[in-house]
Amino acid sequence: MTSTSHRHSLDINPSSAAEVAIRQELTLVALGKQPADTALRVGRLLDVATRTWSLDQEIIIKGRRIAYVGPAGTYPGQVEKRVHEPDLSAIPGLGEVHKHIESSHLTPEYEAALVLPRGNTWTCEASHEFSNVNGAKTLEFWLKARETGSPLKIFPLPGSAVPPTGYEHGGGFLGYDEQKAFLKESLMVAGLDEVMDWPAVWNRDNPSYDRLWGMIRATFEQRGVVEGHAAGIRDIATINAFAAAGLSSDHEAWTFEEFWDKLTHGLFMELRPHSLPDVIKGLLEKGLQDWSQIAFTTDDRSASDTLKMGATDYNVRLAIESGLAPEIAIQCATINPARHMRLTPWVGSIAPGRYADIVLLFDVQRLEIAKVWADGQQVSEGKRYLLDVPKIGWPDWATKTINIGRELTAADFAIKAEPGRETMKAAVLRPFHWDDDFLTFELPVMDGQVQRDEARNITKFSVVDRFSGKGAVSKMFWIGCGPRTPNTALACSMAHDKHNIWCVGSSDEAMAKAVNAIAANDGGWALVRDGEVVATVRYEVAGLMTCRPPEELHEEMQTLYAEGEKIDWMYEPTFSPRWFPGFPERLAFATLTCAPWRWVLVAPSDYAPQGLVNVQTGQVQPVVF
Amino acid sequence: MTSTSHRHSLDINPSSAAEVAIRQELTLVALGKQPADTALRVGRLLDVATRTWSLDQEIIIKGRRIAYVGPAGTYPGQVEKRVHEPDLSAIPGLGEVHKHIESSHLTPEYEAALVLPRGNTWTCEASHEFSNVNGAKTLEFWLKARETGSPLKIFPLPGSAVPPTGYEHGGGFLGYDEQKAFLKESLMVAGLDEVMDWPAVWNRDNPSYDRLWGMIRATFEQRGVVEGHAAGIRDIATINAFAAAGLSSDHEAWTFEEFWDKLTHGLFMELRPHSLPDVIKGLLEKGLQDWSQIAFTTDDRSASDTLKMGATDYNVRLAIESGLAPEIAIQCATINPARHMRLTPWVGSIAPGRYADIVLLFDVQRLEIAKVWADGQQVSEGKRYLLDVPKIGWPDWATKTINIGRELTAADFAIKAEPGRETMKAAVLRPFHWDDDFLTFELPVMDGQVQRDEARNITKFSVVDRFSGKGAVSKMFWIGCGPRTPNTALACSMAHDKHNIWCVGSSDEAMAKAVNAIAANDGGWALVRDGEVVATVRYEVAGLMTCRPPEELHEEMQTLYAEGEKIDWMYEPTFSPRWFPGFPERLAFATLTCAPWRWVLVAPSDYAPQGLVNVQTGQVQPVVF
Repeated sequence: MTSTSHRHSLDINPSSAAEVAIRQELTLVALGKQPADTALRVGRLLDVATRTWSLDQEIIIKGRRIAYVGPAGTYPGQVEKRVHEPDLSAIPGLGEVHKHIESSHLTPEYEAALVLPRGNTWTCEASHEFSNVNGAKTLEFWLKARETGSPLKIFPLPGSAVPPTGYEHGGGFLGYDEQKAFLKESLMVAGLDEVMDWPAVWNRDNPSYDRLWGMIRATFEQRGVVEGHAAGIRDIATINAFAAAGLSSDHEAWTFEEFWDKLTHGLFMELRPHSLPDVIKGLLEKGLQDWSQIAFTTDDRSASDTLKMGATDYNVRLAIESGLAPEIAIQCATINPARHMRLTPWVGSIAPGRYADIVLLFDVQRLEIAKVWADGQQVSEGKRYLLDVPKIGWPDWATKTINIGRELTAADFAIKAEPGRETMKAAVLRPFHWDDDFLTFELPVMDGQVQRDEARNITKFSVVDRFSGKGAVSKMFWIGCGPRTPNTALACSMAHDKHNIWCVGSSDEAMAKAVNAIAANDGGWALVRDGEVVATVRYEVAGLMTCRPPEELHEEMQTLYAEGEKIDWMYEPTFSPRWFPGFPERLAFATLTCAPWRWVLVAPSDYAPQGLVNVQTGQVQPVVF
Repeated sequence: MTSTSHRHSLDINPSSAAEVAIRQELTLVALGKQPADTALRVGRLLDVATRTWSLDQEIIIKGRRIAYVGPAGTYPGQVEKRVHEPDLSAIPGLGEVHKHIESSHLTPEYEAALVLPRGNTWTCEASHEFSNVNGAKTLEFWLKARETGSPLKIFPLPGSAVPPTGYEHGGGFLGYDEQKAFLKESLMVAGLDEVMDWPAVWNRDNPSYDRLWGMIRATFEQRGVVEGHAAGIRDIATINAFAAAGLSSDHEAWTFEEFWDKLTHGLFMELRPHSLPDVIKGLLEKGLQDWSQIAFTTDDRSASDTLKMGATDYNVRLAIESGLAPEIAIQCATINPARHMRLTPWVGSIAPGRYADIVLLFDVQRLEIAKVWADGQQVSEGKRYLLDVPKIGWPDWATKTINIGRELTAADFAIKAEPGRETMKAAVLRPFHWDDDFLTFELPVMDGQVQRDEARNITKFSVVDRFSGKGAVSKMFWIGCGPRTPNTALACSMAHDKHNIWCVGSSDEAMAKAVNAIAANDGGWALVRDGEVVATVRYEVAGLMTCRPPEELHEEMQTLYAEGEKIDWMYEPTFSPRWFPGFPERLAFATLTCAPWRWVLVAPSDYAPQGLVNVQTGQVQPVVF
């Protein structure tokens, strides 16, 4: 077995048999009984198990793995190639404990090229975005980039939210059998991702109850990790119930108090940047000495934001800037998440048997990355990725996922009035509607249709079924979002988490045009202004990602934003602190149906023909009455 | 589903389906939507995730589990029974990360009664002792006590050392298929225990290579933990090789330096009492801030020693006395080992979903235990166990394990000389013989047999095959152990790790008599003095354990020791620091064949007819020549 065969075949998404063969060879290399490929000698090296630095260490590499770590010159065997970085500090490759790569909007091979130079060498992929589009292909999709040579280790955790609630359909359906098969098929599958449909967890009458617990059961059965998502769960009783259900973690705490209550009730806590500074500050004030149950997580970040801020490295930097010791901050992105995810044999530390993923720092306090090694070779210099991005011809099951069935017209977006009515009551939502009940407004009727009312900030919001090919469209009135500019609409095929197509618009014609433009592009964004398509962004893979370099995507997004700036956007504050005036990019998250939302708009189904449903109770409601 | 049904059926060694049902109910109890059984209100409670105390907390229990933890009075639901312990401090039930219950010499139900009052509520059973006697029944044996109501959670890890080396046979053979079946059969199986046959790990030519790696493969395949045993492995290259092989832990470090080298090379370190004070002192001097990769372990401790010193609680106390903060010491016996063993959903913290296993302390600094709760009920008051020990009629597969095939006679222990020789060279070992080569002595011949030489401290040591029924006996001369008193012999059916019967004696007649006495008792100890059996200790289960209260066993052992004191025991120091003058109890470990031993005596086989074999190289050798 040569190092070449390792690099190219055996040690990619390894099976248990391959893992044995790899380790049998590594053992001999460590003993000096077989030659190593590379010795990487570094100025100092951080052991994350003890949070201590050692000076002048050599890391001996065979294939993609570390065979030996020790003081420079102590390795007893032969080495083919030697690299010396006397001025750099080595830390383990940084890991994402919970990330939706789909939110980068890059396919995995381009994600790798983007995040590797930023220190991110392994990612627990929170796969309910792609899974909601094509559940059956989840694993094949996430393992493919690595099979073609990409050094980013992606550990797919099939999402529990497929579908997100029992009131959504199409694309993917994952239950006991599917999760069992995933966990059996690949050791890369670490568990079940973010159980988030809380009403389906506690309430036996919820239509997703059996499906969801079936996935939890399959995960217990194969010793996987059951991840949680406890958004809006802040009272002690529900936090207890969440942990009692066997959901092992949360990444949705917004304040220090919420974070602390969850951390001290048995949950492994994953901390996102937007609440990180406050929470870190609180933990430091509390005098926390043991950070082992804490990790940092990105969750969702666009390629544009990663280009600007960084990847996992940004999270670590932010923690250091918030006052945390750099070594603890590094643990929160290395050994802590690896241990929680039961991935310590592969990632999380610079130690024998693990992948040779090493981040070389100019400066530790500022986490300034000089070079990154992954899979035993240098993959970046500064921000520059040194390898070729593999060319993957993504098949139709990945690229032809928009199936509306026909061209839409204005009529598809019309909301009919009852004959003879001059006004009708409308059930109205706003983005991130966390009230128990929907709002109601009396809206005017014209030409037999209920009308928008820009004067009161009310426009039309729609969800187009993009799976069944039935041309099914649900629509209702929303407040405080969307264009005031006439004959204008914005649409996108990313509509968390079911990923139908959402559209908001000031005219039905513009809405139809925007959705049709997305369908023509196999997914993405479309902006119609004054009746014309003025910008599109192509997400041709699953309607969520593009198979292009991030810079190109970024440019396309900038054009969209620039055109978006010419539009007068309605705005009202809402319950989400991340809902801002201007271009309403976060509407892609306003379709979320998980806790704590109540009334939401989903694609039409037999169950909820108009799509308006309370996902806590299952109650449905006409959109006008 | 009532709490009674939980207590008596569902929540014992739960399957994934049972686990789901239990957690579905716990969720409702936590929310106050279903009634709880018990509220245990405590003066303060230690959260081991953050190492912080909270005052006046209530622990809400349903069945055997914790449903809710919070400030007293906050639980929103109904509670059947309330208990208030305002003056006691609650910490999680203590866990053993690596223990051979067989070394208590008590069956699991009596072990439970002994260790529960000492705070030990869960144990990772290092099962290569019983497995070497009856490998096929490993799981059935370890799960049975709990099935009959014993509250000690035993998580069996089938031992990799079955057989310990490729040169031993009989009783058990565990490979890929067996390990796969164990891991599939029960979620209680956490992984593979202590891979210790190092020559079989690195050397493809070793006869155990494929079997051992097969077990490792089966464990990777089902996401179990592969435990290590790196005895005598102290050089950096071999420590690296050990970790590179995928062996995740070690419990054999004797010095601080060895411990540190292993801890900083990716191994989870399990610390035994005999090296604990020195290692803790070293770690404190080093200023170690992160103890998350460290646990305490008992490994082997007799019931007598547990009665005297304590169980896991002793290890924790010893750490505190060595200068470690009590809260960190408690973490090293709770969350740290639970996390390493991937058992956090069940044990290791006082948190929802976990077993309601709570140790109530009078005093934290002295770890003075007032009461222990396990499985949701109080099980001890002081050292007194409050429950009935279940009566288990252990079947023949557990009790009829001594199969020598016939009565032995003096002739079985004779070592024949070559005709015409007045002396012969003898290959001689001593207990814990860590030299590369055996010793040689010229010994006298009388009546055609090679003779002992008490003047030079040389006596006869024997291993009797107790599995095949062939009456096979290997014997040779050993130095520095055994009785000088004439016609005297000591024998025991605990002979680590293959557990044949060893015997040391000053006459062949006495040796035969001692072994026959053990066979008549189905196992245990026998001491023959001046030709008479003067003491026996019965280990009627697997020849390793007895199904009796520890006090009774202790008494029997005291008689054995008292009779042993009347004997003049030969002694020479050897490489083990735990080999002392007097009654040679540790000879039961002198038959160990794992690293770093070289030449050992095993039961006769076709491979090594006289039983003397070098387990590193496979070389065999006549015992006299």
